Amino acid sequence: MGLAMARLLLQAGHRLTVYNRTRSRADQLKDLKPVVAETPAAAARGADVLITMLADDDSLEAVMLGPEGAAAVLPAGAIHISMSTISPALAARLAERHRAAGQVYVAAPVFGRPEAAAAKQLWIVAAGPADALTRCRPVLDALGQGVIVVGDDPPHANVIKLAGNFLLAAAIEAMGEAFALGRKYGIAPADLLDIVNGRLIRSPIYENYGKLIAEERYEPAGFKLKYGLKDIRLALGAAEQVAAPMPLASLIRDRYLAGIARGWGDVDWAALARIAAVDAGL
Amino acid sequence: MGLAMARLLLQAGHRLTVYNRTRSRADQLKDLKPVVAETPAAAARGADVLITMLADDDSLEAVMLGPEGAAAVLPAGAIHISMSTISPALAARLAERHRAAGQVYVAAPVFGRPEAAAAKQLWIVAAGPADALTRCRPVLDALGQGVIVVGDDPPHANVIKLAGNFLLAAAIEAMGEAFALGRKYGIAPADLLDIVNGRLIRSPIYENYGKLIAEERYEPAGFKLKYGLKDIRLALGAAEQVAAPMPLASLIRDRYLAGIARGWGDVDWAALARIAAVDAGL
Amino acid sequence: MGLAMARLLLQAGHRLTVYNRTRSRADQLKDLKPVVAETPAAAARGADVLITMLADDDSLEAVMLGPEGAAAVLPAGAIHISMSTISPALAARLAERHRAAGQVYVAAPVFGRPEAAAAKQLWIVAAGPADALTRCRPVLDALGQGVIVVGDDPPHANVIKLAGNFLLAAAIEAMGEAFALGRKYGIAPADLLDIVNGRLIRSPIYENYGKLIAEERYEPAGFKLKYGLKDIRLALGAAEQVAAPMPLASLIRDRYLAGIARGWGDVDWAALARIAAVDAGL
Amino acid sequence: MGLAMARLLLQAGHRLTVYNRTRSRADQLKDLKPVVAETPAAAARGADVLITMLADDDSLEAVMLGPEGAAAVLPAGAIHISMSTISPALAARLAERHRAAGQVYVAAPVFGRPEAAAAKQLWIVAAGPADALTRCRPVLDALGQGVIVVGDDPPHANVIKLAGNFLLAAAIEAMGEAFALGRKYGIAPADLLDIVNGRLIRSPIYENYGKLIAEERYEPAGFKLKYGLKDIRLALGAAEQVAAPMPLASLIRDRYLAGIARGWGDVDWAALARIAAVDAGL
Repeated sequence: MGLAMARLLLQAGHRLTVYNRTRSRADQLKDLKPVVAETPAAAARGADVLITMLADDDSLEAVMLGPEGAAAVLPAGAIHISMSTISPALAARLAERHRAAGQVYVAAPVFGRPEAAAAKQLWIVAAGPADALTRCRPVLDALGQGVIVVGDDPPHANVIKLAGNFLLAAAIEAMGEAFALGRKYGIAPADLLDIVNGRLIRSPIYENYGKLIAEERYEPAGFKLKYGLKDIRLALGAAEQVAAPMPLASLIRDRYLAGIARGWGDVDWAALARIAAVDAGL
Repeated sequence: MGLAMARLLLQAGHRLTVYNRTRSRADQLKDLKPVVAETPAAAARGADVLITMLADDDSLEAVMLGPEGAAAVLPAGAIHISMSTISPALAARLAERHRAAGQVYVAAPVFGRPEAAAAKQLWIVAAGPADALTRCRPVLDALGQGVIVVGDDPPHANVIKLAGNFLLAAAIEAMGEAFALGRKYGIAPADLLDIVNGRLIRSPIYENYGKLIAEERYEPAGFKLKYGLKDIRLALGAAEQVAAPMPLASLIRDRYLAGIARGWGDVDWAALARIAAVDAGL
Repeated sequence: MGLAMARLLLQAGHRLTVYNRTRSRADQLKDLKPVVAETPAAAARGADVLITMLADDDSLEAVMLGPEGAAAVLPAGAIHISMSTISPALAARLAERHRAAGQVYVAAPVFGRPEAAAAKQLWIVAAGPADALTRCRPVLDALGQGVIVVGDDPPHANVIKLAGNFLLAAAIEAMGEAFALGRKYGIAPADLLDIVNGRLIRSPIYENYGKLIAEERYEPAGFKLKYGLKDIRLALGAAEQVAAPMPLASLIRDRYLAGIARGWGDVDWAALARIAAVDAGL
Repeated sequence: MGLAMARLLLQAGHRLTVYNRTRSRADQLKDLKPVVAETPAAAARGADVLITMLADDDSLEAVMLGPEGAAAVLPAGAIHISMSTISPALAARLAERHRAAGQVYVAAPVFGRPEAAAAKQLWIVAAGPADALTRCRPVLDALGQGVIVVGDDPPHANVIKLAGNFLLAAAIEAMGEAFALGRKYGIAPADLLDIVNGRLIRSPIYENYGKLIAEERYEPAGFKLKYGLKDIRLALGAAEQVAAPMPLASLIRDRYLAGIARGWGDVDWAALARIAAVDAGL
């Protein structure tokens, strides 16, 4: 993901210093000649804008606040654009930390898979101080097909990202159950999809995931089931913070665990639908 | 619903005898001069095609097989187009019964609310013997925007209808939980909907129901919550017949019951989403 | 079940006419010389007390109200003691029917397996008119270790029976999940049971079912999983009648279906716990 | 809880240094003249055995590993008896940490409420190196009615504690649903309890909680609902670590959240049953 985004920024003419835990990743960008940093701190030193795109809360914390972390050396006035799917709680904590250091935190999680990133098709949901958003807008514009500003409170962007992924997972679970029901009556999933999405729901998301499920095509993974679990865990955690029960999210979480217990952690998260099939004896 | 359909048939030039338990309903058609029957049997006697559109399994059974029922007098060779949302089990039983009497059963449940019926915007999912479908096609064409033929086994059409309604209810439940989460963080449902459906899911169904939920506009009911319960009960019953667990359908059923216990049986079924809000203390 | 009960009645000195769909069953009682009837009606004709113990609502309806059914010939003033696990709705309907015919309906479902019946260890939960309960008390006393009278409204007894079975199933589900968790950490179910039931819960029910689960001893079945499904379906149906959501009952129902889809309909209903194990990859 | 335990140790003749964040708590022990430490470190310095009983993982981590924490100064060879209800993950981490420092970690969580602790009625589930368990046995024996040794792997004791609390919460949820069903049919919870627990389940746990629920007596809290949530969260977290789905635990978690959203965080955790009543319109 980060690789695709770095390429877009370089192609848009931005000067870029890149850092990745696995240094060889940067080699794939060598035609575009970025500066390659050895540590997060080295990447952040002297930067106007710092962009992070990491797997989870722990990774982001390590990169920002750990040894050789970026937060300590980021210049006052610099903007940290945090694009990972993380908890709103961590977003709030980092925002506070940056504010105390005279830096600025902008939450900017994205919707879209790596191939969407490469094609500049990401949607970016951004929240942070208005002037900071204006200042870093050219950077965000270089990274996706659109930027949706949702106010000045960074965690809002993260909640919206988590709510969005939850809705996708819910659609997958619903199709999984509906297709399993249909199959037991001898109705082909593709036919059912053609009717219910083709005439009623008419969503490209249902179309794409519906096809994966209908064809049981869970490999290679576009987005791994174990990351689906991570995101639903974040959604449930965010909901617990504000005492909002989400029983459908709980159901999805339990199904992901049943998938992981069966060894499906690395197949596509659409394999959530496979649990419904297995439970129906299919 | 039946009223809108009768109007369309008369306007298309079909000769029609109508029957409704509440006789005065037929008065609304008097400008189109249908024959009005006093009993189901009177409506079926001598008919080429018999169309039924009733509230549930029990009503359809009463009209077809009860005293003064239609089945006993329907001519051999006549087609019964059964358009109610009923159980596949009843469809199978009626199909068998008609076959034994030399009559033909066509299942043709519809997607769309009464106003869609009035505007000839229904989608009709039809299953039955191919020649019967050909013969009654002009009738079906007069009733909706499209006919989707799904084979010769009538219950298939009913399963597809139930699966479709389940998917809609699942989308409502998912939005209900997502919106409640967002609201607890101070995010307006309309904003969340604008992002997650406007950019990602892009479904008119999510748009319509999402707006109802965002605006908490559950009255007047387009489709009553108690009928939502009826349909999910039918889906769960159909799934039980073939040993297909549908935990999301179970969740939705329990939520409908919680709504009915709160006196919401007659508000719009989108009020399913209100349970998520109430449970979050909203 | 009926066999064990008939034996107890004969041993207690009651005069008994028996009827079973499978006539040869009565042969097992031949040392006690009951009268054997060819039809339900033949068994009911002239009886003071009619006892029914059948598999489900449909069987009871057939025996009472079908061709050669018992209701039509039961003398005025006679008592029908209905001991099957049935829906409160059917109990109410039959009570009304008998009342209209000058007969009396007593609901008297039982707790206990066939071997408990044979050992006169059943608990009988009885509801009906007080004088009828007094009159038939010697019969009930001959059939179990105790009679618990719960008022004069027959459906109450059925609701209590269904609530009781639900609590047993809930305990099995809870142990299933707890044991699966323990096993994944290397804790033997027997050890966990010894602590949590031996010291905390201290219930013979947990002890018995806990052992079956710990030893994965699901055959031969004491009570078949498919009957567990039937009873939870009745509980959910009874709850739906009064708009009481029971999400734990729904969860159990879905798990039974997952078991039946795997071919476990005829193993012991404690195999509910096996689903938790399977879902955990055990 | 800690207070009651300190009193038992002093009464048993052990020499004791106590530490509590709220210093005044120790005043309640002044008749027994314990040494009162100002910091965790001060309490641990020179100790043979260190006992911790804290609210959650974070508190234990702070006391052991934070500034003025106990771990750094605990002598080599000393035993840390960790009695809090914490995650098995933290138990494993602390055990490793102590081992590296030549100290010994014993997990010894307890079953029982504060009043049980005061009456020396706790059950202690202990896991750790066998020789350490032997050495600290007199301390454990002074604290409860029995010590159950479950091997040498400390997290095992924590998993058993979490599984036990889950089983209690499951019993409460089950009774909540069963009682709500009964109430809607006009059956008093006390009568239902008398039958289902009095004759079938026969558990003192069901008796105690069943009475609280039947009488809707949720205040004062014996164990607060928010701690029930904490424990079920720990159970779900422990289960996620090993990919064991626990849908009943998820259901209970969602219900606790619904309770907390209604402002019931500080009432007794048996109020879990109140959600079932509210959802049934009671």
